[in-house]
Amino acid sequence: MGVSRKIEGFMSQSSWIRKMFEDGAKLKKQYGAENVFDFSLGNPNVPPPVRFKEVLGEIAGEDIPGMHAYMPNAGYPETREAIAGYLSKEHTVSLSADHIILTCGAGGALNVILKTLLDPGDEVIVPTPFFVEYTFYVDNHGGVTKLVETKDDFSLDLMAIGDAITEKTKVVLINSPNNPTGKVYDEESINKLADLLDEKSRGYGTEIYLVSDEPYSTIVYDGVKVPSVLKAYRNSIIATSYSKTVSIPGERIGFIAASPELSDLEKIMSGAILCNRILGFVNASALMQRVITKMQGITVDVEEYRRKRELLCDGLSSLGYRFVKPEGAFYLFPRTPIEDDVEFVRLLQKKNILTVPGSGFGKPGHFRISYCVDDATIINSMKGFGEVISSL
Amino acid sequence: MGVSRKIEGFMSQSSWIRKMFEDGAKLKKQYGAENVFDFSLGNPNVPPPVRFKEVLGEIAGEDIPGMHAYMPNAGYPETREAIAGYLSKEHTVSLSADHIILTCGAGGALNVILKTLLDPGDEVIVPTPFFVEYTFYVDNHGGVTKLVETKDDFSLDLMAIGDAITEKTKVVLINSPNNPTGKVYDEESINKLADLLDEKSRGYGTEIYLVSDEPYSTIVYDGVKVPSVLKAYRNSIIATSYSKTVSIPGERIGFIAASPELSDLEKIMSGAILCNRILGFVNASALMQRVITKMQGITVDVEEYRRKRELLCDGLSSLGYRFVKPEGAFYLFPRTPIEDDVEFVRLLQKKNILTVPGSGFGKPGHFRISYCVDDATIINSMKGFGEVISSL
Repeated sequence: MGVSRKIEGFMSQSSWIRKMFEDGAKLKKQYGAENVFDFSLGNPNVPPPVRFKEVLGEIAGEDIPGMHAYMPNAGYPETREAIAGYLSKEHTVSLSADHIILTCGAGGALNVILKTLLDPGDEVIVPTPFFVEYTFYVDNHGGVTKLVETKDDFSLDLMAIGDAITEKTKVVLINSPNNPTGKVYDEESINKLADLLDEKSRGYGTEIYLVSDEPYSTIVYDGVKVPSVLKAYRNSIIATSYSKTVSIPGERIGFIAASPELSDLEKIMSGAILCNRILGFVNASALMQRVITKMQGITVDVEEYRRKRELLCDGLSSLGYRFVKPEGAFYLFPRTPIEDDVEFVRLLQKKNILTVPGSGFGKPGHFRISYCVDDATIINSMKGFGEVISSL
Repeated sequence: MGVSRKIEGFMSQSSWIRKMFEDGAKLKKQYGAENVFDFSLGNPNVPPPVRFKEVLGEIAGEDIPGMHAYMPNAGYPETREAIAGYLSKEHTVSLSADHIILTCGAGGALNVILKTLLDPGDEVIVPTPFFVEYTFYVDNHGGVTKLVETKDDFSLDLMAIGDAITEKTKVVLINSPNNPTGKVYDEESINKLADLLDEKSRGYGTEIYLVSDEPYSTIVYDGVKVPSVLKAYRNSIIATSYSKTVSIPGERIGFIAASPELSDLEKIMSGAILCNRILGFVNASALMQRVITKMQGITVDVEEYRRKRELLCDGLSSLGYRFVKPEGAFYLFPRTPIEDDVEFVRLLQKKNILTVPGSGFGKPGHFRISYCVDDATIINSMKGFGEVISSL
């Protein structure tokens, strides 16, 4: 009678990630944190760049009247300009402050975009496996999520996306580098996706927006580069944050960047500014906005994550685990040696290894390992990973 | 075709406050900021307490691993404990960390509460005049706002509230000290409201939650005290922030505090923690959470606002304006000398005085003056206020 029926339903399904987290907390109490191998959460453990600390200290020490007051609803103009300037170079497109809105992380950005765009029943196409929060975000604003499988190597299946598009498709939501797979969609596939969306929206007489959630954009390996959706497709919008690239997810700062060629650009940006306000975000922290103004192009030490990736991939590979080697982010998404991924994750848990079943990401038969952990956690977990696979 | 129909509608109605803000920006460019008397926005101009600066400096300078990482979804346990401890004393109820959730300001808190509680079509009763964002917040989560007039002195009209309650009433949402009137509902009226809600929910076999939005709780004058809803009513929830009490609205930090006797307490708190996450807030800034842990009971210099209130009330009163003297917050809500409040606000604007018509708060025939401005703005505006009233 208290909680709404929908939220009650969500709670009973519960998030796998959260469940693992709670079980993990119990195990840690029982066995000591150093004896539990917690790969369940994507909470970055590589520290923020040294420059972040310096800039934070400087700005926190300043004494400017109104520095903690409300700013214009889109964020500080100078922050928006700094981001636009940096992105213009990175994406080789011409962005101004008018194309940028500061947000409460990428989660905030996505909710603002979806609320701005979706009419009831509008469809949002999401390639699987996918970040579990998306279905909630889409549902929050009356949309319908349509999941579309990716190929075996987790690359986009354009045929399947094409088949899924209807006249009700308003958004295609991609996440690259991907959580949970670490896949980075290459330039060719993004260009082909853009062609497909162009063709389909012309065919239906609609606008289909490509929303790219890319908080891991600078965490990429082996010279891989995340192609620019802003360059590839006129109706593209980036939702992102500094949570992973600067290792400050607790500070809740990100932004929306819209293609200058977006159809209905001005109205969509005004709508998004309104939605940022009426959803209760209002804005990202004033202090953090001023900090990231001075942090453009500065990123965490990706070499740290690369080393962890090698440790994990080499270790699991030699034990007989099969996976697609991630090109970015800090997740590995191996196949489970048995079909039942939930059961397999339980077997790992008995060895004090905490992971998340692929079912939680819309892809059974797999499990997710977040390798944003100490090297020791990776190294010391190998015994358990080995015992489980050889027991099957 | 881009923006959703609903958001398009919201944009065309537009917020009066925002409209005034934009017109004001134009006037300031034209005449110079010192010649424009901007009473349109509730952006506090009294600086944060000195202690805030000190604590911020200390905490920003610390070097604790993970201090900018994700924390548990309800917020830092120690922050929740500090808030619970302070509130327990203030409200003389026994709260623990389990009753507190950190949020992205009071706007975030209200959205989280409403999403947690509302089924489609559930009714939320709001006494008018009211903070304009409420109708958006309620609509975000499928609820229906039912506006109920207050009495001439802006006190609660319990008869009218009683008449408005139906079996679909899930929430009564009050705001005290009130924006835009500065009214503080006294203990007797809160107790009677509690009795009414008790009686009605027993009658209908429902639970009616009293949600109290009280970000101005410590900005009160003449010894007035905001009575405790937690003490008065078992099904009460506070939504609040440090935006006004510590003058840091840009930092987006607030909290939810639930009555320990809340029906369905555990489920509602779990639901709210889930909603905080899936709405994209995840949490308030990690840094700010740690700052406010050390700021319990510390508030801005209320004497500053009291002095501004006197300046404004004395000035306008002697010019012949009629109003209920505010008991808290930093708003004055006089009657307009002519019936058409929008027209009257336009007349003031011609004298470079920016205010907001009462229509924007569901109460025509009035206008709102935000007096969180420099004393000079108040003093120098009196000429224009006088010219307008004597021209009518």
